Amino acid sequence: MSGGLLRPGERLDDLLVSNLHIIQDTKAFCFSMDAVLLAHFATIKPGDKVVDLGTGTGIIPLLLTTRVARLSVLGIELQSDVAERAERSVLFNNLQDKIRIQVGDLRLIEELLPGYRANLITCNPPYLPLGEGMVSLSQQQAIARHEICCQLPDVARAAAYLLGTGGRFALVHRPQRLAEIFYWLNYYRLEPKRMRLVHPRAGTEPNMVLVESIRDGRPGLKILPPLFVYEGESYTPEVKALYFREGV
Amino acid sequence: MSGGLLRPGERLDDLLVSNLHIIQDTKAFCFSMDAVLLAHFATIKPGDKVVDLGTGTGIIPLLLTTRVARLSVLGIELQSDVAERAERSVLFNNLQDKIRIQVGDLRLIEELLPGYRANLITCNPPYLPLGEGMVSLSQQQAIARHEICCQLPDVARAAAYLLGTGGRFALVHRPQRLAEIFYWLNYYRLEPKRMRLVHPRAGTEPNMVLVESIRDGRPGLKILPPLFVYEGESYTPEVKALYFREGV
Repeated sequence: MSGGLLRPGERLDDLLVSNLHIIQDTKAFCFSMDAVLLAHFATIKPGDKVVDLGTGTGIIPLLLTTRVARLSVLGIELQSDVAERAERSVLFNNLQDKIRIQVGDLRLIEELLPGYRANLITCNPPYLPLGEGMVSLSQQQAIARHEICCQLPDVARAAAYLLGTGGRFALVHRPQRLAEIFYWLNYYRLEPKRMRLVHPRAGTEPNMVLVESIRDGRPGLKILPPLFVYEGESYTPEVKALYFREGV
Repeated sequence: MSGGLLRPGERLDDLLVSNLHIIQDTKAFCFSMDAVLLAHFATIKPGDKVVDLGTGTGIIPLLLTTRVARLSVLGIELQSDVAERAERSVLFNNLQDKIRIQVGDLRLIEELLPGYRANLITCNPPYLPLGEGMVSLSQQQAIARHEICCQLPDVARAAAYLLGTGGRFALVHRPQRLAEIFYWLNYYRLEPKRMRLVHPRAGTEPNMVLVESIRDGRPGLKILPPLFVYEGESYTPEVKALYFREGV
């Protein structure tokens, strides 16, 4: 199959766990540590029905399959060419019984997945409000990075629509926007229950925040110890353990 | 003066900076590290007009005078016997030109301080919702620890009333309640701008959060590196530096 697997400009990357591989286009948006941390931060239970909003390369669905043996993940992606690439990754890994990729706009979640119910929603959304930072020349990158096609309230609203009471919503975002994140989570009755700040190294400000909410959960937030990514020139043991580990 | 200074059960504690002392009743609520951290976390500028809501022993006003030479602080305290003790501390330190203590209920801020305008509000409020934790037998302790006489929205509302655009509100609270804190700050247009989590030691969850908001501020939160209190059996250098230092 790998003969016709890759299109011009694409490469096949080894995820170093469960023999998983992912197709990425180096000129487009490639997955980053944010997605890896989110895929490990989210609480996942055997049998979970997961929706990954804005799945991009499909990195989060792929990694989730290494955490629990029994689950199904639906990855929603707005851009059809990006979705098609994610789908080829799913097929290459022979995970089509666990992962499905669907093209669609999460702002139209009611039409896209009418009456659909999941246990866990994950999302690594665009971080930058329009007007902040340089908008990429590549449309694929721009849509992945800037809030062009979906904003924070759209993401929270879609998650809330798909979750019943007790359902989980795990999000990675920028710490600068924490107040706004909590505002929209509260607005859509997604109570923040677990949070972790990610710092490049000890003594630095965080550059990522991981938040897990429970639909209609009781108030009370557990903040975990900070996660430091580097010490000296290498990853901290905790981060290394995420990248080099055994899948289920 | 120290002959008639102390009442039965009271003691005089050395604050180890600027030769300051504070009167405390060991059977009542004594100040803790929370107040010390808040007094150093708040942004303070020369000439600031400060209101400390629920001032208790007066620890925050006293410490603020060691950070900037020119300022005036009004400490509001609900319990008249607690306020009277704080006032004796002010007099003992000869700080009556900088610190004033006033008995009053912050829930009635409009009647208490009609039209009053401050640059900075500080507050180390009761942390525990009614129904959580054991309510102290001592009424003084109970009111200081449990939300009997003032709740989070009361505090945010009073702060917002006293601040004009650009005014600062510095709060210390429990991390578990962060979502609720942000909710009420947003409700009263107090935009969280700076935040720091305080952890007992590296690798542990935080047990305190410091938040500074700006009245009508633009969104965008700066989260500082975590503050660790202990390493081994002693304070970390950063915490030591707060307790043993030179005042202005």
